[in-house]
Amino acid sequence: MRDDQTPSRRDFLGASLATAGGLGLAACASPAAQGSPGPGAGLLRAGDRVLFQGDSITDAGRSRERAAEANAQAALGGGYAWFAAAGLLVGHPAEQLQVWNRGISGNKVFQLADRWQQDCLELKPDLLSILIGVNDIWHTKNGKYDGTVATYARDYDALLTRTRAALPDVRLVICEPFVLRCGAIDDSWFPEFDHYRAAARDVADRHRARWVPFQAMFDAAIAYAPPEHWAKDGVHPSAAGAALMAQTWLDVVTG
Amino acid sequence: MRDDQTPSRRDFLGASLATAGGLGLAACASPAAQGSPGPGAGLLRAGDRVLFQGDSITDAGRSRERAAEANAQAALGGGYAWFAAAGLLVGHPAEQLQVWNRGISGNKVFQLADRWQQDCLELKPDLLSILIGVNDIWHTKNGKYDGTVATYARDYDALLTRTRAALPDVRLVICEPFVLRCGAIDDSWFPEFDHYRAAARDVADRHRARWVPFQAMFDAAIAYAPPEHWAKDGVHPSAAGAALMAQTWLDVVTG
Repeated sequence: MRDDQTPSRRDFLGASLATAGGLGLAACASPAAQGSPGPGAGLLRAGDRVLFQGDSITDAGRSRERAAEANAQAALGGGYAWFAAAGLLVGHPAEQLQVWNRGISGNKVFQLADRWQQDCLELKPDLLSILIGVNDIWHTKNGKYDGTVATYARDYDALLTRTRAALPDVRLVICEPFVLRCGAIDDSWFPEFDHYRAAARDVADRHRARWVPFQAMFDAAIAYAPPEHWAKDGVHPSAAGAALMAQTWLDVVTG
Repeated sequence: MRDDQTPSRRDFLGASLATAGGLGLAACASPAAQGSPGPGAGLLRAGDRVLFQGDSITDAGRSRERAAEANAQAALGGGYAWFAAAGLLVGHPAEQLQVWNRGISGNKVFQLADRWQQDCLELKPDLLSILIGVNDIWHTKNGKYDGTVATYARDYDALLTRTRAALPDVRLVICEPFVLRCGAIDDSWFPEFDHYRAAARDVADRHRARWVPFQAMFDAAIAYAPPEHWAKDGVHPSAAGAALMAQTWLDVVTG
């Protein structure tokens, strides 16, 4: 058996990183300064406190009453965060991980900031994964909000600066905002949405965060099933979409 | 960054293999004879034809009309086989895989054998994954069938002998039959069901197949959500159950 005949599940992820401007790889080239391992190395450590943060895609119906409970499905919801948590917990029993979800439906970056002290910093995560952005553009498009991509980039950068100041050793995972071209998503979203994605990537690179390429993943996935299969309204993933997101998240974080 | 601080997603899988009597590891110690790489090495090769076979858990509502189409969601169903296929295809675009599903609801091993020529051998899979067994016990318990664990073991062994004779280089993946203790599953299933699982493991070892420890996985998963969350009737996985199965399958096959 020759090693060069053994492809890796990271083929796709590696390709995505390599073609996304190279900034991620460059930023990760000196990872030790902030405790973030380089690309390809597992981010997970024994005893880690893991926190998922974001909007409805992360929330996915989690129980508020049981929110304080680590590792319980009801507290983790029914979306990618739960599917990824299940993979982490079942796949790593010896690591004694503690996983929480604090995603809240409808949130934009400034709303994460409003509740960051209690819903992130006081939880003292060792590994923090954030997926935020679709409402920052969506609520502006439908007149509920007046933020722009510059607002998004500024608020996101400030949030991560604040996070690093309070938790210098936190390992950061930034998930790429994504949409599928169906449901609520029409041509009017582009190219503006791409600018939000680019802003998230830029913030991730600046803060030495590991990048999870969800848009690239869904762009590849529509070769095998229509966009509606992955997210009926173009925004909120189906079980199949959430399962694929969890696989990609686990590859990036534990790969 | 020290390697010994980087846990692996294979912690659990490795532990499962190590504690399952050691037969799997021993059998895999001389893998070259049948083209099966040893434990921990990826089974996947560029250009592979991948086939999922089994019962309703594999079938999961796949389209019969589109069954001949490789890589299409409709033809792959909505269960673990599709979730795993999506991960394979999206994660390995350069490998140009072709994935099919030929699971049929209600099947027992002898029914796989009845259709094996057209539904397996003629498809010439390079990588063949089989999950079969729950109906072999269930249909005996409810009086529809008179097979025993000895029938199951004999039929399964014959099926794999026939497969190896026709496809000497096929890489085999045998999935552990599993049940959750809820729904249709009561105490009367045990310890008999454990004997079916042991028979599947024995057949897998004898034919140098890679083993996917689904029962061990679900036994670990019920620490985080009740059995009904993973499979409401104790047999057919929910989306969360299918997502976790796909992660484990991908870890075993591509790890």
